[in-house]
Amino acid sequence: MKRRSAHVHVHGYAALKEGGSMKPVQFDREPVRAGEVAIDISHCGVCHSDFHQVKNDWDNSVYPCVPGHEIVGRVTEVGEGVSRFKAGDRVGVGCMINSCRECDACRRGEEQYCSGPKGATMTYNGPIKPDGTNSYGGYSSAIIVREEFVLSIPEAISDAEAAPILCAGITTYQPMKHWGVKAGQRVGVAGIGGLGHMAIQIARALGAEVVALTTDAEKEPLAKELGASQTIAMDDDAALEGAKESLDFLISTIPYPHDFNPYVELMKADGKMVIVGNLIEFEDIQMSNVVMKRLVIAGSAIGGIGDTQEVLDFCARTGVRPRIELIAMEDIDEAFDRAKDEEVHFRSVIDMATLQKDADAKEIDTPVRGEVVNRATQPKATEPADVLVEA
Amino acid sequence: MKRRSAHVHVHGYAALKEGGSMKPVQFDREPVRAGEVAIDISHCGVCHSDFHQVKNDWDNSVYPCVPGHEIVGRVTEVGEGVSRFKAGDRVGVGCMINSCRECDACRRGEEQYCSGPKGATMTYNGPIKPDGTNSYGGYSSAIIVREEFVLSIPEAISDAEAAPILCAGITTYQPMKHWGVKAGQRVGVAGIGGLGHMAIQIARALGAEVVALTTDAEKEPLAKELGASQTIAMDDDAALEGAKESLDFLISTIPYPHDFNPYVELMKADGKMVIVGNLIEFEDIQMSNVVMKRLVIAGSAIGGIGDTQEVLDFCARTGVRPRIELIAMEDIDEAFDRAKDEEVHFRSVIDMATLQKDADAKEIDTPVRGEVVNRATQPKATEPADVLVEA
Repeated sequence: MKRRSAHVHVHGYAALKEGGSMKPVQFDREPVRAGEVAIDISHCGVCHSDFHQVKNDWDNSVYPCVPGHEIVGRVTEVGEGVSRFKAGDRVGVGCMINSCRECDACRRGEEQYCSGPKGATMTYNGPIKPDGTNSYGGYSSAIIVREEFVLSIPEAISDAEAAPILCAGITTYQPMKHWGVKAGQRVGVAGIGGLGHMAIQIARALGAEVVALTTDAEKEPLAKELGASQTIAMDDDAALEGAKESLDFLISTIPYPHDFNPYVELMKADGKMVIVGNLIEFEDIQMSNVVMKRLVIAGSAIGGIGDTQEVLDFCARTGVRPRIELIAMEDIDEAFDRAKDEEVHFRSVIDMATLQKDADAKEIDTPVRGEVVNRATQPKATEPADVLVEA
Repeated sequence: MKRRSAHVHVHGYAALKEGGSMKPVQFDREPVRAGEVAIDISHCGVCHSDFHQVKNDWDNSVYPCVPGHEIVGRVTEVGEGVSRFKAGDRVGVGCMINSCRECDACRRGEEQYCSGPKGATMTYNGPIKPDGTNSYGGYSSAIIVREEFVLSIPEAISDAEAAPILCAGITTYQPMKHWGVKAGQRVGVAGIGGLGHMAIQIARALGAEVVALTTDAEKEPLAKELGASQTIAMDDDAALEGAKESLDFLISTIPYPHDFNPYVELMKADGKMVIVGNLIEFEDIQMSNVVMKRLVIAGSAIGGIGDTQEVLDFCARTGVRPRIELIAMEDIDEAFDRAKDEEVHFRSVIDMATLQKDADAKEIDTPVRGEVVNRATQPKATEPADVLVEA
């Protein structure tokens, strides 16, 4: 039967204020609109950026903050005009849920660099520069997202394993694609955690020789298992001296300020050093080698939706899989603590079946889903969309 | 008549020790060998890097240090096998006088990134990482250089104007070529001195719109005259705010550590920021914009010999000319002081006719000219080369 789409009542976990612990919450999501897809969430990965934003480390957090942008689940309802998905499909949502879709960046499939009026709308915590949008992410039982920002999960990959590919996978795959990592190159991976362990596998799958760079020498067997041909402990001066000027490409996944100069020493002339982890600062970058060897220090932020689908398919095809540990929703604070202490063995993934839907969970405001900026490409809808759902 | 090439007795100016002032010196250069060209120097540009090296700011100086790598003069003698030059030719020598010429970098014409056993041999102060070579540069009456490292000066450019193109010109031209600066782009030039004033003209000649970025608002009329369509004083917060995310490319010629973050704010997503001046360090680079906008911070060192000839010809064709002031050799310390205090109006060029050849100038050791590493490409010569010179 046909009926008007209703508000979707959702349970989840949120940080209610800066420095606060994660609390059970409940809220409504606005009804499914034209072009949108409602998803029941089965799993959500725990990204380092989740606790950075919960703690407001990047000075841009909006509270309440419901983190989570490595979302996998099943479609429950689709809005008018949705053609790519139907109820029951296994789908994912990564770091973005909207963008202007008409600027140069959007047109070339790099929605994360959207230069439209509000930039890309992030899956939670709104845009990086908040404009009032307060999107709530995947630490919740359901989410509603425009179909253009919904990914198909390849059959070969389980729900839980797919989740981290949506951020850790794309964030490390995209710059390797952008800078042309290939066979014959030596690639350094700095930081062997959630992103780094994906980077090792992806670089290897692209044909490169991989050197794992870590401050924790105990990670050597794991790095080798993931495909690294060599591991260098960053406090081993002899090893560093021996590896000077040996890398064509470096991806640094280290998510906090640290001394970058020892990594610079490892680069060949014309080497590319891509920073995906540290959004805070580098103190004291020595420039002599950077200039004299024409090194590139480049940032890179996640990846576009097309590339995110590409990395899902790439992982399905090449056998690249995140190493995960399933956790219960209520153990999220502990997972944050372990991630911070670098004790986490790769990626924690929340099994959303563990979410308790307590009737007395704190009620928080309905999140504002980003306006659709580019009306021209939208299906015409002058009133709330009618959609077909099961009664 | 035919005769054996003799030692060439040379007068010049040198720093004899770290922190010392420049003193008149005399020394012998070893006789012209096969493949080499002897040049009587008419003019030598004064580069910021000259006083950095005189003062050992880069921790790599070898004393005595005879600076100068913007050398123009006339050929007086050529060694066996030299085919491209003859006595009387007007020629230049830039920052390099040798390289292995068989590594990948040398083969693609980027001798400055030579990965051969000793790297490129710099025109003075030997390699950046000294290996004992103690080349003496162009603050001297004559120099002897392998013909592959000698440039032809186009007729349209005077000796004195050609000199700064050999370092300031190539250093700013090469990264614009490498990163594809072109019409339709907005290019920022940070620092309006010897390099910056060339960068403004070159970017404009390449078709880009140029924004001059300076700490000295009095430079605005000059920047405009050189081709900048806008000048932004870096202490003008309103102007900086208005110019946020407006540049496709930035070249920073500022030759000392400074706060780089205000420049980062000016870049569009995917913007390229090339550092050619500051070989020392950046303290505190904020990474949020670098990552979230996929900015590139890249070094760039001078340029290969082919590109140096190209920029000479480019300047001849497009009317790009350094603004110079001729100085006498004995006034070099004063020129250094003014350059340090940013008072120099663009490029000081030493008129070598002013060099006093005092018989009691201090005698210093004969400089070692770099070994020819790549013997395979050399003319066979088992004994000191005989050459044809005028008696």
